[in-house]
Amino acid sequence: MKVDIEAIRQAQNRIKPAVVETPLLSAAYLNDRVAATVFIKPENLQPIGAFKLRGAYNRMCQLDKTEKALGVVAYSSGNHAQGVAYAAKLLGMAATIVMPSDAPSIKIEGTRKLGAAIRFYERGSESREAIAEEIAANTGAILVPAFDDPDIIAGQGTCGAEIVAQLTSRKMVADAVLSPCGGGGLMAGASTAVKAMSPDTQIYGVEPQGFHDHYKSKIAGCRMSIDPGARTFCDALLATTPGELTWSINSQTVDEFLQVSDDEVAYAISYAFRYLKLVIEPGGAVALAALLSEKLDVTGQTVCIILSGGNIDRNTLTECLEKYPTP
Amino acid sequence: MKVDIEAIRQAQNRIKPAVVETPLLSAAYLNDRVAATVFIKPENLQPIGAFKLRGAYNRMCQLDKTEKALGVVAYSSGNHAQGVAYAAKLLGMAATIVMPSDAPSIKIEGTRKLGAAIRFYERGSESREAIAEEIAANTGAILVPAFDDPDIIAGQGTCGAEIVAQLTSRKMVADAVLSPCGGGGLMAGASTAVKAMSPDTQIYGVEPQGFHDHYKSKIAGCRMSIDPGARTFCDALLATTPGELTWSINSQTVDEFLQVSDDEVAYAISYAFRYLKLVIEPGGAVALAALLSEKLDVTGQTVCIILSGGNIDRNTLTECLEKYPTP
Repeated sequence: MKVDIEAIRQAQNRIKPAVVETPLLSAAYLNDRVAATVFIKPENLQPIGAFKLRGAYNRMCQLDKTEKALGVVAYSSGNHAQGVAYAAKLLGMAATIVMPSDAPSIKIEGTRKLGAAIRFYERGSESREAIAEEIAANTGAILVPAFDDPDIIAGQGTCGAEIVAQLTSRKMVADAVLSPCGGGGLMAGASTAVKAMSPDTQIYGVEPQGFHDHYKSKIAGCRMSIDPGARTFCDALLATTPGELTWSINSQTVDEFLQVSDDEVAYAISYAFRYLKLVIEPGGAVALAALLSEKLDVTGQTVCIILSGGNIDRNTLTECLEKYPTP
Repeated sequence: MKVDIEAIRQAQNRIKPAVVETPLLSAAYLNDRVAATVFIKPENLQPIGAFKLRGAYNRMCQLDKTEKALGVVAYSSGNHAQGVAYAAKLLGMAATIVMPSDAPSIKIEGTRKLGAAIRFYERGSESREAIAEEIAANTGAILVPAFDDPDIIAGQGTCGAEIVAQLTSRKMVADAVLSPCGGGGLMAGASTAVKAMSPDTQIYGVEPQGFHDHYKSKIAGCRMSIDPGARTFCDALLATTPGELTWSINSQTVDEFLQVSDDEVAYAISYAFRYLKLVIEPGGAVALAALLSEKLDVTGQTVCIILSGGNIDRNTLTECLEKYPTP
């Protein structure tokens, strides 16, 4: 299956019962700060606090009756976990999630609360892929991939389609769209939709410093991995290599990749608390961080940033607010 | 001037350049929790983090050239302060705000950042009215009242008009609308709009425990004050007696007044962090608190709650999150 605007349109119809069409917000202080017209796509306002439900539901609602009865399995540090768990609940399916033992507690509790079974693994010593495959083999459960799957990508793409439609209804065209980029699923879906509907819009992917595998791949012209030993508190963006399918798309649709440091992300989280009144998790704040730390000159432009999630532990939030009390 | 739906419609046209039409949000977890279809009107997403800009701008944009040159003065614990300061900045006017010295620092800094001059006063020993009147007498500045004024009330009423229009566009009618109630300006404006546009909708005002002057007035059939010595951390809702004009409206348009404790509000703030991903200040969270603490049986109903502001100090937020880590 090809991921094109038609697939994304079909996904839009499928996900309607489960997914919120998040509004496009504007914030006067932010506009002043960066001397641009900024629109915010707050995917933290989805039922599970992140965009991941879009792809998970689009994939899972297409399973047939027999497959549904077998249930699903997925591995995820937390947002895809909750997306799969929530979709499973809506569709009346069982779900098992393979999660790292050091996932943020808000994500672990959220997944559990949605009724999914959790199998923890140790990041250093265990393979989440192997564990998930074993569960699938033993139970017949269908594996729901986190990003490297056409239905997942098409589902995430609905976010980009909404952005363009919402701007069009305001008679506006974005000069630039900035999206967080981890495994590249949201990036691939959103960029496909935006480029199809608004070909003059520039697309930027934002990665945490050290996790710039898409940036490296763009420079090299082929899929590259990050250097070992990298660390970031953007727990949602820990992918070390672009997905095969996501890269085949992103290498064509994304104009440039930017990087932000953990400090720049912490600043953005505190800024969002103070001026946007939104709770954003580290991985969800990278596009805002790129804007605030001027990785891109957007003077006079119309810009849209995707805030992809808000599942942050209170301690992490508190630390960001203490570090940058008056952003 | 009468405050009716026509005045509110006129205000809607006037405030367009300054005020955000906040979206109507829904949250699946909240719907499950209270077994109702809940819509959230997030006024914390206004440029100044609270609804107060609606009324202030509607009042101030109607000043003539001579009045504008003289500037404005207002007294406020913080949200009206920022509303007046922001409107003054947009309209090119000078603004002086009389603020209590113990106002939340986020509100003091916000007001200052918007370019307003601040005159602090001591809550116990000084009269903010007298100070503001003196400033007005000395400088000719126009006093912008916080709530007891037809243009202010009509401005706040645009929030109610938006709610009904946004529900109508979803082909829905609210069974109940819950609004925070302090001096009663938002309450009076929103209830006027909702009752005019959706006469079958029940309107509830929510006050902090001990600051239930509207509740007492409703029972007594005339304006009543709270008992002395009451305390609440809902700093935006510290009015001790309903306004004359606001009460003349609210006594007719509000069906019932509810009260919530500080603990119930702290719980709601933590809930909003966790499940709604929204930053809400104490006074802005009372309607959500009323819903979560079951002050009202809304089973099976369509309900809209107004979250009126999000200007909360990080320490206050942190305390709420620590007190109720897993709401």
